[in-house]
Parts: sequence; structure tokens; C-alpha cells
Amino acid sequence: MNLCATASYATNLEAIRASHRRIEPFAHRTPVVTNATLDTLATRRLWFKCELLQKTGSFKFRGATNAVRMLDDAAAARGVVTHSSGNHAQALALAARMRGIPAHVVMPSNSAEVKKAAVRGYGGRIIECEPTLEARESTAARVIAETGATMIPPYNHPNVIAGQGTIALELLDECPHLNAIIVPLGGGGLISGIAIAAKALKPSIKIIGAEPELAGDGAASKREGSIQPAMKPVTIADGLRSSLGPLTFPVVRDLVDEVVLVSEADIVSHMRLAWERMKLTIEPSAAVGVAAACSAWLRARENADMQDVGVVLCGGNVDLAALPW
Amino acid sequence: MNLCATASYATNLEAIRASHRRIEPFAHRTPVVTNATLDTLATRRLWFKCELLQKTGSFKFRGATNAVRMLDDAAAARGVVTHSSGNHAQALALAARMRGIPAHVVMPSNSAEVKKAAVRGYGGRIIECEPTLEARESTAARVIAETGATMIPPYNHPNVIAGQGTIALELLDECPHLNAIIVPLGGGGLISGIAIAAKALKPSIKIIGAEPELAGDGAASKREGSIQPAMKPVTIADGLRSSLGPLTFPVVRDLVDEVVLVSEADIVSHMRLAWERMKLTIEPSAAVGVAAACSAWLRARENADMQDVGVVLCGGNVDLAALPW
Repeated sequence: MNLCATASYATNLEAIRASHRRIEPFAHRTPVVTNATLDTLATRRLWFKCELLQKTGSFKFRGATNAVRMLDDAAAARGVVTHSSGNHAQALALAARMRGIPAHVVMPSNSAEVKKAAVRGYGGRIIECEPTLEARESTAARVIAETGATMIPPYNHPNVIAGQGTIALELLDECPHLNAIIVPLGGGGLISGIAIAAKALKPSIKIIGAEPELAGDGAASKREGSIQPAMKPVTIADGLRSSLGPLTFPVVRDLVDEVVLVSEADIVSHMRLAWERMKLTIEPSAAVGVAAACSAWLRARENADMQDVGVVLCGGNVDLAALPW
Repeated sequence: MNLCATASYATNLEAIRASHRRIEPFAHRTPVVTNATLDTLATRRLWFKCELLQKTGSFKFRGATNAVRMLDDAAAARGVVTHSSGNHAQALALAARMRGIPAHVVMPSNSAEVKKAAVRGYGGRIIECEPTLEARESTAARVIAETGATMIPPYNHPNVIAGQGTIALELLDECPHLNAIIVPLGGGGLISGIAIAAKALKPSIKIIGAEPELAGDGAASKREGSIQPAMKPVTIADGLRSSLGPLTFPVVRDLVDEVVLVSEADIVSHMRLAWERMKLTIEPSAAVGVAAACSAWLRARENADMQDVGVVLCGGNVDLAALPW
């Protein structure tokens, strides 16, 4: 672990600080909230960073804005493209619109209408394709060939990771006493940015990934020492179904101290708990972090060195017409 | 209106400042959030004070805590009592528990089980009675005779009103540029405390009540110049069904600039809008304020002198098993 301090990752504290200055005029500085009921369940103090209150309803707006703002004017004018269809697509669409440039979003033809409407609502141009990864990639390649747009991937990109890392700057600025931060783990962009920034600012802090049991490839990758493929995309936490990427895996391997796995039942019950007690409409991916905070694993940790734990509520994009209870 | 500056109401800025110092160790300083979608709908900037994130899920905790803390030790030891069964009951139960004293809550026997469970969850002692106002009052009188407990009413009490007024101190401290504050109007405790504090701090600020059409007795009282009785309690905004009281009516008459009436359909649609776009599980009473902020009445106001409007999201206590859509 001592080697890690000098290891070279996709981004670093200096770049994350620069990203923060870059996105500050556009992104919300999200509030940190506490809740006595959750503290009791977790047997310690929890500090919830409310990225569900971020623009477009998720942390993805930070990384997308940072990446869009770092394009030079000529590249920016040709627009940006992605073939992610979730929160990153909405975030990229708004980040592009705020710079006055086009965002091309390649989406499978069977995507939920609510997701298409959200992307369109933020000014994104949707290009439909067959619902296979191959079709998405080839369609995105065609869009790039036709428009000269720049691909902004959802997590495996230095500027995206640096943007997500700005969460750690704000959280540790407001809560410098934190002993640990719990971060939902999917493709690893969020946890990588946070781990790099937080460990540089406070080397003693623990970074804990929270992952669905049914999408436990991140924990497996850490254990095996190599990127393990994504599992069948069945978890309700649809934001956490991706596998790690070449830029995020080394950070998860070296700087993430633990990955806690959470059952589907616990995801749903902690999502409902957050709605009822915290009054926040977190999405299932965010509930994975809440469930980890209330897990037997965390409750078994000594309070002395784990008294104050940050929890990143990563997003709140939920279809109210299809709640899981 | 000039007379009002010297008029004597239930409380004043000095008392509200003292209340703030008194409740600060116990209550949350709730965040103020903004939302681009809502700004677009309202055609101006809205600043949402998130009292749904207050302890017990509503602003009522401020007034209850202030009233409980102002009791001398001998009176406090005998406990407090109320026959309100909504958010005030939960707030009073927790405020009492935090002082280590009993809270007796008289509730009609047909109260929703979820409400009883909430009061019990905060340590309140429930005394059931027949579902009539007479039975509630006589049962409360009996409890007082038996225990010597002090009645803490939900709104018509100087210390309760002063506690609710602390919201205005925080909101204007964070957003001194506000031109107006929209406040849901029921019994008038919330709007009275806010109006007294806000107009003392910034005489030019407008205070706008938001009331369901089906519980428009506040607007009627202002128009008629006398307290009008509560209407049939049919509005979904169950926190706003009360009539004004002798202490709140003069403030509503003199210091509230306008009362905007909102339809039931608008309450439900703006509740859903807040859940979907703001990610906040506001209750119907809070949605009345959001609907007023997006109303034709406000949209018809010139932007020049109404550019920045505060909106008090008063609470978030909703039964997730019975959503109105």
C-alpha cells in the first residue's frame, strides 16, 4: 500500500482540484445530511453526500461537465457522443447543452421511454440502434465518423474520473473528521475519483465499495487481481451493472480498502428506508451504499476508528410508476 | 401597514433569535436547494428551504423543541401533552424525549396506525379517545389534571410560533437577496413566525401564503377581517386543514401580503414533480407551496421585484403505501 502513494493512476489530487474549479460554476455543491434513525441502525454517525440533488439527478453531471469543459473549442464545436443510456447520458446531454454544443446519445431501440424522454429533455440527440453492445459501439463509431464528435465514456476516462473526485473535496471540506467513505461500485469511476482525492487529502481514511451481490464483479476483480467480467445484468441497481475498466481497476485494487456485498432484498428495504426516514428519493444504486452502511460487516467494525462514515448517495433517478415495493 | 411595524404580535424578532440559540443544539439547520426545472416553471429563481429534512420530518420540531426547552424544570418534569395527531405530535414526542420528560399524546381511536407508530417510535405515550374534538379536549384536560403536564398546542402558542420563525433567520442568512417567501398556510404558526422574523429583518420582503382551495379559510379570514372556521377536512394536504388561531390571525391579517389558493390536482402533480425532479419526498402540504410557486398568480408577477423567491418545504411525512398517483 505504501507504494500506492507514488503510483500513477488515471488522475490525481491536483487535477481533481482543477476539475472542481472548472465545474463549480455549473454543478451544485450538494448538501451533506445526517439522520438519527440511520445512525442508530449503523451504530455510528453517517454523513450522507446528496449527489441525488446534483443536476440531472446524479453525480454523473460532475464528470460529464469536466470532460465537456476540457475539450478545446474546435473539438467541442463538433459535439460529444456516448452509448451509455443511463444517468451518464442525461448528464452528458445537459453538460453539452450548457456549453452550447451537440450531444449524440446512442441508445438501444428497446430503452425505456422515460430514459429517452430524459435525454431529450436535456437537449440530447438520440440515435437508436439494435439492443446489442456491438450495435451500440458500431453506431457510435459511425456518429463519430460523420460528425467528428468526441466520445465521452461513462467512467473509464481520466477527466470523467477527475470530475467525480470533486465529491471527495467537498465532503472532506465539510466533514474533515470522517474515518471512512462508502461509495457504490459499478464501473468504478465514482469510487476511483473519490479514493484518489480522499487518500491524498487524508491518507488514514478508508474507502469502502458497496456492490450488489448480483453484480459482485468489482469485489471479485479485487480478489482475483484482474478485471472480472460483468455479471448477468439482473440486479435492481441498474447503475452498478458495469465491469471495471482499465483505468478504474488499478485504483479499486490499490486504494479501495474493502468491498461490501449487498443482497437485493437489502437494496429495496434500504431504498424504502431512505425515502421514509431521510425523505430522499434515492435510486437503487444509492441504496446499495445505505445498505452497506447498515450492514453486519460495518456494524462489526470497532467504533473507535470508524465513528464517522461518509456515504455517497449517488443518484435519485427512479420511475415513480414502477416502485419495487 | 406602517402601523404593523410597531404592532404587538405573539412573538418578535428578539424572541425568535433567542429561540434559534435555544434549539440550535437539537434541530437540524436544514439545507436550501435549487432546481432548474422548477425555476423554469416558475419563471424565476426558487430557493427551497428543506424542512422535510428536519428532525421528525417537518418544521414542527422547531416549535415543539422551543416550547419544551422554555419550560422550567419543575413544569418540565411533569411532562407535556397535545391532542394534535399529526406532525406536531411526533415533534413534541421527540422534543420531550430529548429533554428526558414524558409526552402524552391524545389521539382519536381511528387514527392511522402509521401515525400511532410514529409517535410511539419517538417515545410518546398515546392516550386514545373518541374521534371528536370534544373528546380530544376533555381527554387532554383529564391528562393534565392527572399528571400536571403542560399543554403544548400545535400552533397557537407564542413559543411555538417563535420556534417556527427560526426558519426565516436561516433562510435570510443564506439567501439575503430573496424578494418573497412562500409558506404553506394551515393554522398559521409557520407563516406567523416566518412573517414576523422576515419582515423585521427585511421590511421589503413579501410573505405569500399557500393554501388549498378546499381549505381556503385562511384567505377568507384575511378577506373578511375575522377568523373563519375550518372547512370540511377533505383536502389531501392534511397538515393545512386547521383554522387560524387568535395569535396567528393578526399576523396573517397584517403581515401576509397575499394568499394563493391551489387546486387538489395541482397539489398532487407538484408533489410528484418534486419527487421526480427534486428527489425530495415532500408531503401534500409542502406541495401546496410548490404549486403556488408555479401558479399563474406568481407567473403573472413582474420578475423585477419577484426574481428570487423562497419556498418552505414544510414536511415529508408520507405513507409510501398510499401514494396519490
